[in-house]
Amino acid sequence: MIIVLKPRISRKEEQAVLKEIRKLGYVPHVMRGVARTVVGAIGDELTHANLETLLALFPRTVESVTPIQKRYKLVSREAHPANSTIRVGPHVIGGKQFHVMAGPCSVESERQLLATAEAVRAAGATFLRGGAFKPRTSPYEFQGLGEKGLKLLDKARRATGLPVENHADLVAEYADIIQIGARNAQNFQLLIAAARTGKPVLLKRGLSMKIEEWLLAGEYVLAHENPNLLFCERGIRTFETYTRNTLDLSTIPIIKRESHCPVVIDPSQGAGRADLVTAMCKGAVAMGADALLIEVHPNPAEALSDSAQQVSFEVFAKLMDELKPFIRAAGRE
Amino acid sequence: MIIVLKPRISRKEEQAVLKEIRKLGYVPHVMRGVARTVVGAIGDELTHANLETLLALFPRTVESVTPIQKRYKLVSREAHPANSTIRVGPHVIGGKQFHVMAGPCSVESERQLLATAEAVRAAGATFLRGGAFKPRTSPYEFQGLGEKGLKLLDKARRATGLPVENHADLVAEYADIIQIGARNAQNFQLLIAAARTGKPVLLKRGLSMKIEEWLLAGEYVLAHENPNLLFCERGIRTFETYTRNTLDLSTIPIIKRESHCPVVIDPSQGAGRADLVTAMCKGAVAMGADALLIEVHPNPAEALSDSAQQVSFEVFAKLMDELKPFIRAAGRE
Amino acid sequence: MIIVLKPRISRKEEQAVLKEIRKLGYVPHVMRGVARTVVGAIGDELTHANLETLLALFPRTVESVTPIQKRYKLVSREAHPANSTIRVGPHVIGGKQFHVMAGPCSVESERQLLATAEAVRAAGATFLRGGAFKPRTSPYEFQGLGEKGLKLLDKARRATGLPVENHADLVAEYADIIQIGARNAQNFQLLIAAARTGKPVLLKRGLSMKIEEWLLAGEYVLAHENPNLLFCERGIRTFETYTRNTLDLSTIPIIKRESHCPVVIDPSQGAGRADLVTAMCKGAVAMGADALLIEVHPNPAEALSDSAQQVSFEVFAKLMDELKPFIRAAGRE
Amino acid sequence: MIIVLKPRISRKEEQAVLKEIRKLGYVPHVMRGVARTVVGAIGDELTHANLETLLALFPRTVESVTPIQKRYKLVSREAHPANSTIRVGPHVIGGKQFHVMAGPCSVESERQLLATAEAVRAAGATFLRGGAFKPRTSPYEFQGLGEKGLKLLDKARRATGLPVENHADLVAEYADIIQIGARNAQNFQLLIAAARTGKPVLLKRGLSMKIEEWLLAGEYVLAHENPNLLFCERGIRTFETYTRNTLDLSTIPIIKRESHCPVVIDPSQGAGRADLVTAMCKGAVAMGADALLIEVHPNPAEALSDSAQQVSFEVFAKLMDELKPFIRAAGRE
Repeated sequence: MIIVLKPRISRKEEQAVLKEIRKLGYVPHVMRGVARTVVGAIGDELTHANLETLLALFPRTVESVTPIQKRYKLVSREAHPANSTIRVGPHVIGGKQFHVMAGPCSVESERQLLATAEAVRAAGATFLRGGAFKPRTSPYEFQGLGEKGLKLLDKARRATGLPVENHADLVAEYADIIQIGARNAQNFQLLIAAARTGKPVLLKRGLSMKIEEWLLAGEYVLAHENPNLLFCERGIRTFETYTRNTLDLSTIPIIKRESHCPVVIDPSQGAGRADLVTAMCKGAVAMGADALLIEVHPNPAEALSDSAQQVSFEVFAKLMDELKPFIRAAGRE
Repeated sequence: MIIVLKPRISRKEEQAVLKEIRKLGYVPHVMRGVARTVVGAIGDELTHANLETLLALFPRTVESVTPIQKRYKLVSREAHPANSTIRVGPHVIGGKQFHVMAGPCSVESERQLLATAEAVRAAGATFLRGGAFKPRTSPYEFQGLGEKGLKLLDKARRATGLPVENHADLVAEYADIIQIGARNAQNFQLLIAAARTGKPVLLKRGLSMKIEEWLLAGEYVLAHENPNLLFCERGIRTFETYTRNTLDLSTIPIIKRESHCPVVIDPSQGAGRADLVTAMCKGAVAMGADALLIEVHPNPAEALSDSAQQVSFEVFAKLMDELKPFIRAAGRE
Repeated sequence: MIIVLKPRISRKEEQAVLKEIRKLGYVPHVMRGVARTVVGAIGDELTHANLETLLALFPRTVESVTPIQKRYKLVSREAHPANSTIRVGPHVIGGKQFHVMAGPCSVESERQLLATAEAVRAAGATFLRGGAFKPRTSPYEFQGLGEKGLKLLDKARRATGLPVENHADLVAEYADIIQIGARNAQNFQLLIAAARTGKPVLLKRGLSMKIEEWLLAGEYVLAHENPNLLFCERGIRTFETYTRNTLDLSTIPIIKRESHCPVVIDPSQGAGRADLVTAMCKGAVAMGADALLIEVHPNPAEALSDSAQQVSFEVFAKLMDELKPFIRAAGRE
Repeated sequence: MIIVLKPRISRKEEQAVLKEIRKLGYVPHVMRGVARTVVGAIGDELTHANLETLLALFPRTVESVTPIQKRYKLVSREAHPANSTIRVGPHVIGGKQFHVMAGPCSVESERQLLATAEAVRAAGATFLRGGAFKPRTSPYEFQGLGEKGLKLLDKARRATGLPVENHADLVAEYADIIQIGARNAQNFQLLIAAARTGKPVLLKRGLSMKIEEWLLAGEYVLAHENPNLLFCERGIRTFETYTRNTLDLSTIPIIKRESHCPVVIDPSQGAGRADLVTAMCKGAVAMGADALLIEVHPNPAEALSDSAQQVSFEVFAKLMDELKPFIRAAGRE
């Protein structure tokens, strides 16, 4: 860590700081600069104490403390320079093949789910998605079909052959990819439980999660011995009110730079508006995303949740068609 | 709800929208304005479908849909015009008496906890706080003592007589007030479980939670038949990087205006810096908060978590002393 | 406007509000709903008073006031359903042709500018950009060459034939497109002065400007009889610190939906990091941008301003090459 | 500055970075840590080049560059440990005396202004405020009386003896304190022009201005030889939509810690709602503000601008009364 001392402190005050640094297990290295003295504390920051305590201990002497090491290891590209690929049934995510995961926001009925599964498969989707337990802002809104929804997803999986992407719930048996939703992205007990199922984990970015925090949440999964992690950007909360969230597509090159894990983009949540989904999908493909997560509903206007952001079968089929030249331009299949 | 139609639409297009509004259970009421036509949809918005579906169903006809009713009921001041008061052991929160809940960020040892409990009681605190299960951004950081920490809290409670404020964990038996932390503020299953314990629930505001969402999360508690809810502001995430969070003190008059529940301010988390805690406490008292939640540690520099934001016994005692004239000025005791 | 009244108000209180609405020039239209009464105030909101005053005048009676009309007219697609195209010298922006405006962040010397102008023209850029007056966060940083820089831009324009895109300064004579920078995006006097030059105005989005505010700032240009307006997204300020700003590419489909004016993307400012520029350019092209604004420098490491975000000649040439398949996929030339 | 090198780089790559650091005028100081090598670059950061260029020059070798020195000097408390006090007519701001600057958002008429000036003086205000040139989001809104407004302010000043706080406009002659509004907080030409008038400058915080940027904008004033600077917090833009802005009261202890200049709080702009103004004033006083800036109007509902945030004479008089015990508790007069 780098400790910057305040100007005009005495040698005695400096010694007190150095002594504490040694006590906390680091070797101090003093540099006298033009305006102030800087101390490099040599030691493994992941196993030693965080020196930010010095700020509180020496409020009149220490100006700032800056960590040097990245706090994440296993998710970092340093640890694993090549792209990770994740095999799910017949598919490989993170390689040359581009994937589309599509389906309704909520599973509402057998008829709705099977019709959607057939329609998205016909249009080229490779995974089925669909929520069974829906966390809703208000207690008075539809909360999902629960376990019945999971069983319907299983049925749709068997009927269409599409692997299923679904929220991490009590039972992982019905999901081929376990989704950790944005509101749970720092629910670390849930992350550990999901990791332990051994299934691929799709980790959505929390609404106000910094990239470093997102990578560290992913680190919880890899640290619990599950190497199959996907990062999914779904929009962050900003001051803008035109869209529900601001989809941060710059996460694609950033996650690719910092980590080896595949990147998925969810433009449905990201915009919260069906009319912006197609343009966002094109951007995501061009910027190097590995997969898309798209909400599709037979009749969006009658959807029991998030109706404004789901696209109809017709819009979805057209979108898949319009994406093709961009997928080719991106060197994907 | 209010539905604004686009300019220059045909009578036939308008009829289609009106028909759909009726189908969804509302009575439409048409107003022809200067620039466009507006439809008021009369019906109980809490029990009928959300008309935002019209945006997706009639993308060329409908410009905007605005709900009219507030989405929360039980937490609203309309439902309960007087201030709610919450009795915990010998104390009443939300009345004339002002409260300070203090203690370490994490319970670390019996010695640390008992010393802190004695010190904060001596300085005038009325509740003991202390984390046993600590959710940490990185998997490599101290995660709390777990159940052992809970037992130490129980011991400190018996030793000092201070009621305990603590995170909602597997066992509620050791807590007199159950805290729902910021990262779990929209973990609705946890909110319901906490409500069902019957104990008072202190609901922290999520890092990027709008006030309406916070009130709705509180609604989950009241809707599950637990009337003892406290809202606790602990800083929101903004673009500013000088402090870890931006403590939003305007929530005090806002929650007082919208709701009947007591308001608690946590300046330790809010600023993330011990040197700003005293000023923020003074502001919170002056603006009408009912209680403060302050992190205190025998030796902040050696704390195992969040060392930069905990204050020492001396600072705490001085703070309590400096608060007195403001508590009096605010008409509290 | 829509005025929502509070529940349980008397007929007399309601009458007082209606009287005031009439006094302010609107015709009130009362709708009695299930939970509360809603008043539609019929009248032209652009010429009449803003009824938000009712909130202050009747704090116990009026719950909310919501405008219905969009506040912008001339920039809106309603006013001008076709895309606007802007002719600058031999080029047309906003049509089938895709444009790249490139050049150094700051004009530093004749040699630097001419070398860059030649290099970006050779790689396919169609406009030259370069700052002469640089607003800098600190008074101790390089503030640009000033008028000397403008003259160098003029020289480079004559040498290469590239039209020049430049900040709105005292003299517009050296610019073919006048740029209003992000910090000045709501400097309305400057917007009016730029409009009056008659030259095309490229209006950057302010760091924390909502889309509606951006459109209204553009309205200042069109309202002062200059129809040649370009909107340029350059990143907004969010909580994320990995990049200097968060480039909001969703503005491309949004501005295209709301307005008829061309959209330009500035990925250099948007990310503040050269290594992310290429991916962002690809995304911008795929999502339907009309042009890109890219900072190029012969030797970025020696640049006098924003060195971290400028790309070298080699990177720029490679970027232009990699963009081609995406430009084709987007149906552009 | 501190330069962190990537892991596993060769000695030759390291040498290339050190050579460049020397070339840019710093003395490099190498520290070999556990995971990576860190270079301290010794030199005056305010006069030498910003080493962030190393990121672009050595993308495969350099991981991060962190400045050590604070970028502001003259506004810092290091430069001037005592509080600055500013004398305006009979008043001293920044000392023991607490001040209230009050008046209408916009000057609308002689009658409105004189009545307000009398009322606020009677209630205890010590300065008159009032806008003459109003920057408005939309070109269709009231833009202020302009020079006529300035003359009315002058008249009110002579009638009441209250010094005037007003926007920096073409003519400074009518203002005793020159205000730089939030939208112009980084309009550096204007800051310099205001500094050169020699009058005290009240610098509002921009909507999305970090504290460091605000201090640097203030540095422009002091660097142009005007020592009379006041910082005025007026709310920042966040994701919250309940209030127009989020008033960041933590700026009071922060500016007091970093700088010697007085701090003014503007709760009218900060909340955008008259009903929250009183509570915010109390908080500001308790937290150590030196003055308040409050919008007062004879009849808020008829105000030509920002009617929702102006308080009536009655509310203002009551507010001044309620503030008294808090001013005393804060040790002010």
